[in-house]
Amino acid sequence: MKEQYKHIGILGGGQLARMMVLRGHELGLKVSILSNKATDPAAQVTQNWVQGDLEDLNDLISFADKVDVLTFESEFINPSLLKSLSSHCSQKILPSAKAMLLIQDRLFQKEALEAGQVSTASFISFDSWPELVEKKDQLELPLVLKARRNGYDGKGTYILKKWNDLKAKEFVSKISTGFIAEAFIPFKRELAISVAVNKRGECVFFPLVQTHQEDYRCLWVKGPMAHKGLSKLKRSLKKFVENIKYRGLITFELFDSGTDLLINEIAPRVHNSGHYSWDALSEDQFTLHLKAILNLPLKNPKPLHKGFAMYNLLGSKKCQPLLNHTSDIRLHWYGKNENYPGRKMGHLNSIGTSPASALTKVMKAAKGFRL
Amino acid sequence: MKEQYKHIGILGGGQLARMMVLRGHELGLKVSILSNKATDPAAQVTQNWVQGDLEDLNDLISFADKVDVLTFESEFINPSLLKSLSSHCSQKILPSAKAMLLIQDRLFQKEALEAGQVSTASFISFDSWPELVEKKDQLELPLVLKARRNGYDGKGTYILKKWNDLKAKEFVSKISTGFIAEAFIPFKRELAISVAVNKRGECVFFPLVQTHQEDYRCLWVKGPMAHKGLSKLKRSLKKFVENIKYRGLITFELFDSGTDLLINEIAPRVHNSGHYSWDALSEDQFTLHLKAILNLPLKNPKPLHKGFAMYNLLGSKKCQPLLNHTSDIRLHWYGKNENYPGRKMGHLNSIGTSPASALTKVMKAAKGFRL
Repeated sequence: MKEQYKHIGILGGGQLARMMVLRGHELGLKVSILSNKATDPAAQVTQNWVQGDLEDLNDLISFADKVDVLTFESEFINPSLLKSLSSHCSQKILPSAKAMLLIQDRLFQKEALEAGQVSTASFISFDSWPELVEKKDQLELPLVLKARRNGYDGKGTYILKKWNDLKAKEFVSKISTGFIAEAFIPFKRELAISVAVNKRGECVFFPLVQTHQEDYRCLWVKGPMAHKGLSKLKRSLKKFVENIKYRGLITFELFDSGTDLLINEIAPRVHNSGHYSWDALSEDQFTLHLKAILNLPLKNPKPLHKGFAMYNLLGSKKCQPLLNHTSDIRLHWYGKNENYPGRKMGHLNSIGTSPASALTKVMKAAKGFRL
Repeated sequence: MKEQYKHIGILGGGQLARMMVLRGHELGLKVSILSNKATDPAAQVTQNWVQGDLEDLNDLISFADKVDVLTFESEFINPSLLKSLSSHCSQKILPSAKAMLLIQDRLFQKEALEAGQVSTASFISFDSWPELVEKKDQLELPLVLKARRNGYDGKGTYILKKWNDLKAKEFVSKISTGFIAEAFIPFKRELAISVAVNKRGECVFFPLVQTHQEDYRCLWVKGPMAHKGLSKLKRSLKKFVENIKYRGLITFELFDSGTDLLINEIAPRVHNSGHYSWDALSEDQFTLHLKAILNLPLKNPKPLHKGFAMYNLLGSKKCQPLLNHTSDIRLHWYGKNENYPGRKMGHLNSIGTSPASALTKVMKAAKGFRL
């Protein structure tokens, strides 16, 4: 039987790759995984697992040669390896190496947002503590100091409240890849929205959702949420993804200042804030990322219910899949064979008659997991 | 990390096993597959695939020794091998070998239904054409002649309309395992219902659905359907599964005569008529079969929408997964690497404001696949 669709390769074997593979199976797509260990979450769910090291250019190249389209589950791919890989097979890489390199770097990210007139907190860039202190007069405290690279779940971020903060100085001294200092936004709530874009120019939007972080780590998501600034935001995001020629799914984390929606961070991939979509939308983020990079037709995913929610199951000593939860909660377990406090082990999805009722349901069910 | 749940092994690697494995992944269960080829639908979606022959007792035993619970995707396991396997590890086998052997044989099936006072067409058993002709005076034409063993999708079935039918005589002469002759039920429609039962005595019912066959092969399903005889049917099925000490999911295919619901056939497994449940119920048949054999708590699966439907994608020369279907249709492709006319290659699920509207939607989407 002739293969109609291109063979997709994913760099990385975590839960995001796992869920892309699972959705790929249902669509009849061939999706291969490059990861280190056979016990990696995505490696477990396919015969098309390739053992290899994401930090080894030979492994990357030989994997790339096997597949037709190469995509990512994480933006933290080594930039110099990505450049080398791109010089070997730039056409295969989606989103493009150029877009990935831009989004990997918070300074380039912010500059691209400003160039595209997408609202975001004002910022400056700096490389050292003395350089920051020098610019003191142009800046208003508190400030959010963010390492340009490799920050996630609060890592690489520091809130500067006073200038004589020794810990801030120490934080800056430990990172060598440069920083941005952003105006602190006293936000009312945090929101997120995902967008999928294909080469033929279709650009579809997911519902706006509210996200709740604890210790900088996503704990729950609910939606769909409304905001008077949503239409304007969508127009500017459409322009932004067109400007950077983005292909695939991209997620924008937002601050709602009360009046405005400001971009906080960008993830060039499927995202924890979109896990709800598996059970709550006409099409989920994993499906739409795969379709987008294959340049298949895209349609705006529609909510199937009035409300939905997601709750992350974070590791603890006793964190196990628990199958006696109520039947209207859907468990998604990642099969990680090591468990430690705070690690994302799985999540629960729920639906309801409103975002709030879905959240109440899923929080109740999640209690069984937090022993 | 301690493994909390038992390791499940499935005998067979087709689409039913594939969907059980996929749901098992989400639940965090370890599910292994015994099948012949690495290209089998279920073999593709797990690292826990074991190469082996279901007709080889050594393969069956060594697979059984690896797992804690052994289950089936088909009732057509060789009965003498099943007996030998059961003498090796009867406790592991769920549903029990005894229940499987009973349901494998249409005569034993019918006798058990009668013993449990479940409505079914009247029947006699016979072994040869002369024996049937001898009983002519007790019988009324038309009759449905069914081989006691290995019948499915119309195979092993013949409708006898007149006694001087040479083809009927030939049909009977070719099968050596005996027959039943059933009264032909002039049914208004065909329906199906699945039941999941665990050891702790919980017995949950799926919605009643209408099934439509073409050339004896399921083409579509819609639901939920109502019938005034449903409560009575449920009571009798509950008794029936208790009588035969059934564990796991079991599906009953039914005739609606206009007034009565009569059991036509029984499948001791997840079933094509329940595929809709993946996208339309609070819990699907694959999840509930796994939970039932693990003796986990069961709850009645609830429809999430007012209507739902399923359409089988049957092989043809050009049958391929087609990913430009509308977004509110869910594709489930089986990854079969050989395609021939009539082969079940995948299915589409839809939801709607009524069973009829869901069916209209899915039939429209399916047109793209029947080239």
